[in-house]
Amino acid sequence: MIHPITGKRDFIESLRGKRASFLLCMSNTKTANIEGITQAGIPGLLHLTPTLDAEFITIGEVRSLGSIAETPKGVPTPALITRAVHLLHPFCEIELIELGLEIAPQLEHFTMHTFGITPSNSISEGASIPATEVFEKGVQFAQELLCKGEYIILGESVPAGTTTALATALALGYDASEKFSSSFKNTPNNIRQSVIDQALAHINEGDDLFDILSHVGDNMLIFNAGLILGLQNRDIKVVLAGGTQMACVLLIINRILQMMEGELDSSKIALCTTKWVAEDTNSDIKALLEMNDFQVNAYYADFDFSLTSHPALKLYDEGEAKEGVGAGGALMYALINGITKEKITKKVESLLK
Amino acid sequence: MIHPITGKRDFIESLRGKRASFLLCMSNTKTANIEGITQAGIPGLLHLTPTLDAEFITIGEVRSLGSIAETPKGVPTPALITRAVHLLHPFCEIELIELGLEIAPQLEHFTMHTFGITPSNSISEGASIPATEVFEKGVQFAQELLCKGEYIILGESVPAGTTTALATALALGYDASEKFSSSFKNTPNNIRQSVIDQALAHINEGDDLFDILSHVGDNMLIFNAGLILGLQNRDIKVVLAGGTQMACVLLIINRILQMMEGELDSSKIALCTTKWVAEDTNSDIKALLEMNDFQVNAYYADFDFSLTSHPALKLYDEGEAKEGVGAGGALMYALINGITKEKITKKVESLLK
Repeated sequence: MIHPITGKRDFIESLRGKRASFLLCMSNTKTANIEGITQAGIPGLLHLTPTLDAEFITIGEVRSLGSIAETPKGVPTPALITRAVHLLHPFCEIELIELGLEIAPQLEHFTMHTFGITPSNSISEGASIPATEVFEKGVQFAQELLCKGEYIILGESVPAGTTTALATALALGYDASEKFSSSFKNTPNNIRQSVIDQALAHINEGDDLFDILSHVGDNMLIFNAGLILGLQNRDIKVVLAGGTQMACVLLIINRILQMMEGELDSSKIALCTTKWVAEDTNSDIKALLEMNDFQVNAYYADFDFSLTSHPALKLYDEGEAKEGVGAGGALMYALINGITKEKITKKVESLLK
Repeated sequence: MIHPITGKRDFIESLRGKRASFLLCMSNTKTANIEGITQAGIPGLLHLTPTLDAEFITIGEVRSLGSIAETPKGVPTPALITRAVHLLHPFCEIELIELGLEIAPQLEHFTMHTFGITPSNSISEGASIPATEVFEKGVQFAQELLCKGEYIILGESVPAGTTTALATALALGYDASEKFSSSFKNTPNNIRQSVIDQALAHINEGDDLFDILSHVGDNMLIFNAGLILGLQNRDIKVVLAGGTQMACVLLIINRILQMMEGELDSSKIALCTTKWVAEDTNSDIKALLEMNDFQVNAYYADFDFSLTSHPALKLYDEGEAKEGVGAGGALMYALINGITKEKITKKVESLLK
């Protein structure tokens, strides 16, 4: 089942049976190098997470490191879920969007869109993103995009991305404290708060929207804001497959539209995340979505690991990891195409062997 | 699972979830009339095998004979596998390529491409194929081909085709003895060797490449060499769905490219065969593939009949039949679209009832 977080069932039901293209945005922010800020990957090698995630969802193996990315607690990457869905009910294509990686994935025969974007600095030191340029690249990409599927599922892999998203939302004036999720069950709020404080200190009076994004954002947030707005003129529906980071993309769009006095045709956009994000008591994605002037349909896929006894997967149900690599959108894709929770569980288990 | 024989996983993974057109090349060589040379069909009616295979994969019944082609040992045609896959996860179209048949399939509403090609003579007497003409027809077909799928799976049904392929490879100077598969578990090497010897005796000093193909080839081998080269200028990927016969097509292409000092863009081609061919100890498809100057990705579909107790199907696991009618490529298509071994097995069983 797919449950609405905001809006009605109709949008997601209209996608039932349709074929989707899966696009993965990959980006590194040096924010991830701050000790203890994220558990999305292997300490010291966190920058590799998007690279490994991309390799794993496309070809089912990791080439840029011996084994699949795990957190220190042993929580395996949500790429497992996305890959499992792709095996059970394949996306009609997977394409990669390279938004500043230290190490490119080692893949042949898969389309990887590159834009000459470099990894962003730590927001604690000022991210130094050419925000207008990155945004415009997103717009242009949307205008030229060839989509084989009947709609797009847009996922992301950005270690420390919830921290940059929270900083961005706060910097844009949203009352977003304690509304953002994290890859931890128990978010290290001291570390996070200190990074956020340092990030916000980089904002100067008189900074405009894009100046602010330059200081505290990440490439994924900014590019996708452009991508979504660029898709407004096209006849392609897009599902933002993610949690509070994707909600932050919408918050950025909201500020851009306010600045331009524009409106959003939200009939072309929905957000879909996991149950772990939707039911997380330490964050509030619904509240974030309701801060926008526009309404969007948002959903969560009713899937958890209650049917497994695998201890690494059980950690998801305890609140670790929660979302990423488009897991929520992928689960939605499986469920609206008749793939059961049992089948998904078994396939994920088989990938851990 | 799909396993690489040569190359990497990427090519085949990039096709996951995409829709394929299935093209079947059908041809008769009178070589099949030599007693004991093949078990791909009914003795005395071997020329009917491609006709019946085409009928069965398209409409699920045979019209040109009472029942589906079986070998004298009762091994059913691999067309059963291809049909089972088409029922479980349909190709987006099946089209037929008529390359010299005694009897045309009795079908309506299916596209059959005809080229005025006649069945070839037995290679023991000289095949007498207008090789340049057949090759050029292949090139031209590729240039004009309308493909509804996102890629092509190219299968073949040519009784005695492994014998003509072996003769061709030897005549072209490849060290190919004992590397070619056959429809038998125990290849009748005496008969085969005698036919090969007679075939090679037709080659004259000074014969060029196409002269040689005229004497010892078959229409499928020559046409497909043209087809593959013709597709080089088009944006269509093709999977050669077959075993050592399809490997021979590549060996022919290799000699043509050597003659023309040309190169192959192997990013558009892969070969996919069955586990029965890949693991056959009486042949060596990997060695054949590695004789080419170019590298191609080649795979086998990890499917066998270990889940059935049907005695006729069990014969496949013992080494009979092995491949044909695109079975290896069809199994690949099923597996990369989420269809399980269990489902394929049950569907094949149901077709035998």
